[in-house]
Amino acid sequence: MTLTPLTGVIPPVCTPLTPDREVDVPSLLRLVDHLVAGGVSGLFVLGSTSEAAYLPDRQRRLVVESVAAHVSGQLPVLAGAIDMTTARVLDHVASVTAAGADAVVVTAPFYARTHPAEIARHYRAVAAGSPIPVIAYDLPVAVHTKLPADVVLELAADGVLAGLKDSSGDLAAFRQVLTGARDRQGITGFSVLTGSELIVDAALALGADGTVPGLGNVDPHGYVRLDGLCRAGDRDEARAEQERLCALFGMVTVGDPARMGPASSAIGAFKAALHLRGVIDCPATAEPQVPLSPDEVERVGKYLAAAGLL
Amino acid sequence: MTLTPLTGVIPPVCTPLTPDREVDVPSLLRLVDHLVAGGVSGLFVLGSTSEAAYLPDRQRRLVVESVAAHVSGQLPVLAGAIDMTTARVLDHVASVTAAGADAVVVTAPFYARTHPAEIARHYRAVAAGSPIPVIAYDLPVAVHTKLPADVVLELAADGVLAGLKDSSGDLAAFRQVLTGARDRQGITGFSVLTGSELIVDAALALGADGTVPGLGNVDPHGYVRLDGLCRAGDRDEARAEQERLCALFGMVTVGDPARMGPASSAIGAFKAALHLRGVIDCPATAEPQVPLSPDEVERVGKYLAAAGLL
Amino acid sequence: MTLTPLTGVIPPVCTPLTPDREVDVPSLLRLVDHLVAGGVSGLFVLGSTSEAAYLPDRQRRLVVESVAAHVSGQLPVLAGAIDMTTARVLDHVASVTAAGADAVVVTAPFYARTHPAEIARHYRAVAAGSPIPVIAYDLPVAVHTKLPADVVLELAADGVLAGLKDSSGDLAAFRQVLTGARDRQGITGFSVLTGSELIVDAALALGADGTVPGLGNVDPHGYVRLDGLCRAGDRDEARAEQERLCALFGMVTVGDPARMGPASSAIGAFKAALHLRGVIDCPATAEPQVPLSPDEVERVGKYLAAAGLL
Amino acid sequence: MTLTPLTGVIPPVCTPLTPDREVDVPSLLRLVDHLVAGGVSGLFVLGSTSEAAYLPDRQRRLVVESVAAHVSGQLPVLAGAIDMTTARVLDHVASVTAAGADAVVVTAPFYARTHPAEIARHYRAVAAGSPIPVIAYDLPVAVHTKLPADVVLELAADGVLAGLKDSSGDLAAFRQVLTGARDRQGITGFSVLTGSELIVDAALALGADGTVPGLGNVDPHGYVRLDGLCRAGDRDEARAEQERLCALFGMVTVGDPARMGPASSAIGAFKAALHLRGVIDCPATAEPQVPLSPDEVERVGKYLAAAGLL
Repeated sequence: MTLTPLTGVIPPVCTPLTPDREVDVPSLLRLVDHLVAGGVSGLFVLGSTSEAAYLPDRQRRLVVESVAAHVSGQLPVLAGAIDMTTARVLDHVASVTAAGADAVVVTAPFYARTHPAEIARHYRAVAAGSPIPVIAYDLPVAVHTKLPADVVLELAADGVLAGLKDSSGDLAAFRQVLTGARDRQGITGFSVLTGSELIVDAALALGADGTVPGLGNVDPHGYVRLDGLCRAGDRDEARAEQERLCALFGMVTVGDPARMGPASSAIGAFKAALHLRGVIDCPATAEPQVPLSPDEVERVGKYLAAAGLL
Repeated sequence: MTLTPLTGVIPPVCTPLTPDREVDVPSLLRLVDHLVAGGVSGLFVLGSTSEAAYLPDRQRRLVVESVAAHVSGQLPVLAGAIDMTTARVLDHVASVTAAGADAVVVTAPFYARTHPAEIARHYRAVAAGSPIPVIAYDLPVAVHTKLPADVVLELAADGVLAGLKDSSGDLAAFRQVLTGARDRQGITGFSVLTGSELIVDAALALGADGTVPGLGNVDPHGYVRLDGLCRAGDRDEARAEQERLCALFGMVTVGDPARMGPASSAIGAFKAALHLRGVIDCPATAEPQVPLSPDEVERVGKYLAAAGLL
Repeated sequence: MTLTPLTGVIPPVCTPLTPDREVDVPSLLRLVDHLVAGGVSGLFVLGSTSEAAYLPDRQRRLVVESVAAHVSGQLPVLAGAIDMTTARVLDHVASVTAAGADAVVVTAPFYARTHPAEIARHYRAVAAGSPIPVIAYDLPVAVHTKLPADVVLELAADGVLAGLKDSSGDLAAFRQVLTGARDRQGITGFSVLTGSELIVDAALALGADGTVPGLGNVDPHGYVRLDGLCRAGDRDEARAEQERLCALFGMVTVGDPARMGPASSAIGAFKAALHLRGVIDCPATAEPQVPLSPDEVERVGKYLAAAGLL
Repeated sequence: MTLTPLTGVIPPVCTPLTPDREVDVPSLLRLVDHLVAGGVSGLFVLGSTSEAAYLPDRQRRLVVESVAAHVSGQLPVLAGAIDMTTARVLDHVASVTAAGADAVVVTAPFYARTHPAEIARHYRAVAAGSPIPVIAYDLPVAVHTKLPADVVLELAADGVLAGLKDSSGDLAAFRQVLTGARDRQGITGFSVLTGSELIVDAALALGADGTVPGLGNVDPHGYVRLDGLCRAGDRDEARAEQERLCALFGMVTVGDPARMGPASSAIGAFKAALHLRGVIDCPATAEPQVPLSPDEVERVGKYLAAAGLL
């Protein structure tokens, strides 16, 4: 099976939790409906914004099963298989495939210090054992290795990788993959997606196929509108919409850096916003993330109000 | 349950694999016998040297079950629970406890960027859910966070942590934990272990309780001898023995850095050495590590010969 | 004195050296003429591409004096004052001012680990002691600190900074400065320049005022053409021109990474290209950079030929 | 000229400043007298603790001239030549030589990303141009490169380097240099000095020649006593003295991390301590360091009192 090149907005879907940190499936499905109503063209579950790194295996599986069953083929479901090394990733690949995912998203090995040759070897082994297409996930802030553009392109040309989700923030390196994927012999149907939600207009102008914005949970309509404006060539309107979304993104800084790390703050803000917007029942984040204080949640509300979302 | 303070040599046990990357239980048990015959005082399975980051859950469980059943209480078995965050670690804690481990070894959260408050929260939640004592594992090279000494001491004083395995290489920070654990009100029975196999003599002179040397797989007798010399106060002999072991450790550099990363080289060398010494049947390392070439294996043999081990 | 907002292409001017590593003033002036003929709108001497970090004070001064006298006010001359801390930077500010520079470009403090409060204090003290406008230079790869956008904007609002030269590669953070400089009360005439030579089209589309491309030494006409196409709104042609320049930029990788670091390779390639194009007499780079081999120089020539420059 | 191997305590001498940030020569000479009275065996001026990175060239020169004239050959004066690259370092070498220094202390190149081959080339060129012996300064926290042990040993064997001042905190790597310098053919008279003031006992037990403790400014008698105890083989007393000094070192944390970086805090504390002890007239630190608050200074006093120094 291959993927038709993915385009449009494919948000990394937050994982709503109950107060006792179980997956809140009804909220999850409401969130999916909210995203589909917003016009997204695919769903990415078990990404970083989904707190995949925090979810035990049974919760991960429940998420994929619930979402895949709910959308039942109407739009593609990508699932992360976030783990340290090849054999562990392959177990997740089997699990998400069985649960109904259409493609799997895989980072470079982490924890152990790694090498470009080991990264390539990893993707080759994962793809050889995966029944569904494999998309590379470039997330140096988590994995502590940047996927080298030449490694990505070689794996694309060899049919190992079906796409790239780039959250490196390095637009120059992203461009190198984009032009390589376009120009290089033997690469077809390769999806180049950006996770850089603050420069979507720039990434699309460079030729990106689609967008994977964490903030798209909160405002899917905004990102879909932005995508449309970019495709229509309406650059000024696109820039204005992107800047509105950049202002909204400021919510990720509400958490006090003396009390919590940036992940607690950002995921906490997205979930608080979804709760304030009435999409999910509870804004709880997974352990050991520190919850936002009531004051911090109030500041999230102000960001929503300023963006016309409350 | 609490641990009697751990002392002596507690090697992180390599995980022998078959050519098709299954756990080679007979080789594993021979390795355990080799270590016990060498005089070690405990075993640490599923650590970094054990390739825990590479083993899928069923292999992890098989390792703990096999080793715990084999030693059946003769010496303590510590087991790593290496995973990204709290709930995932707790699943491993349950697994290794059921499999017979006496204590569990846990790093700070990784993948997500973390904060000292989140690290403390993590250990508190893990300890609250663990039937067996929890030992902190400080491994910044893998986890990308240094465990702050004051966080470790606070958790020790609160009875959350039963010990520390320090592989940070930062002896000054290690000393801060050592003196704090000795002097601070309310800390008793806390085991301070060093994973810095090249400065064991220095760590013991500072007051460390025990040693967790990866190279101890290859030469357990050497590390046990070193430990004894240090405890007997025979500093010059200890230094000479440590220097012999430092020279032997040079084997970790045999792998060509143009072809592989440092983990492939180091784990590959330890396993090649165990194979050359006749302890294990096959030197295979887990994917996606790059295997050593025959020339590189030959160089491992020269290190063994120079150290009088072949 | 204030600067009119800088626009267009302001290349960081290479510093040609003689075989015995003295400044080759005739070659430097020919290079300036080559750039002016290419249509650049300003010159940035003593930047990183100029090897400022390698030049002793007397050579730095000679460069500024020679260039400022040669262009005699026809276009603005910006000069780097690259040093570790406030008092040392102020000595360079005095020197480049006396030598005729129109503005000075200053990084955050480096060598000592620094803090946002110390960065702000540094720029305030430098600006207080500088007769000419101060432009902040964001170069985390060298300085190991990213200039926080809020610090830059606060200093801009207070009249401390006259502009920003951003070589961080982080386009999302760059956008934050751009929109802040446009929207925030009290900021006027602030020049926002990008040093990211591979995404100039993207940076200009976001609203950047100008460009500081190291590769502009080799192909000033290309960057001036790119700037014009962007300003004319001819996005497709702009993208094609940018991609041609990206391909040309590949020359920075000619140096063998087993023999030299990335700076030796990149600066060596730019100077080899200028030598091959007949602009400068000698491609020597400053010590301790490793020279390119004849084969590596030949590969530079192939990049030039492919881009139509030989 | 070669150096007799340096031994004992060679503190990096603080640079007292007047309230308007000029070098306070009378205070500097009183500090030198205080150190000499404490029994130090050499002086290291223009090191990191001396704020060399903050001092303009004329202040650097004044420091060396003043100290060298004051001690007039009674004990060796080492001087830092802290700058980014070869030619700039050579200017400092000429300056400190003319000012009377007996040896020069030089880091790897910084600012530009560097490579082991460039580091070796740098030291070879510096040594070729230096009339006085060159000591390598390993300070990764400032320079962002660790000096590889094999590069240091090769340069020692070739007569390029006369010693190493290791402030990396990596005792295992330090040991590799120590044993190499002892065992390798062709290395004689090479001084291996540790800057790790919290593990001096450990470093001397491994065979270090001498110690360069920043805290030795505040308590030279303590470090000289520690050195003597170690040489006498009185390990328990040595450990107790080292632990007293470790407790005193806690003063470096008095500065509020929300207001300043670690350098402002540490240098500020040392100078506040010297001021409280009556050695220097003014505790001012160089710009852009943030001054300690009165409360923070009061906490420095408590550290002094607890160590019996007030």
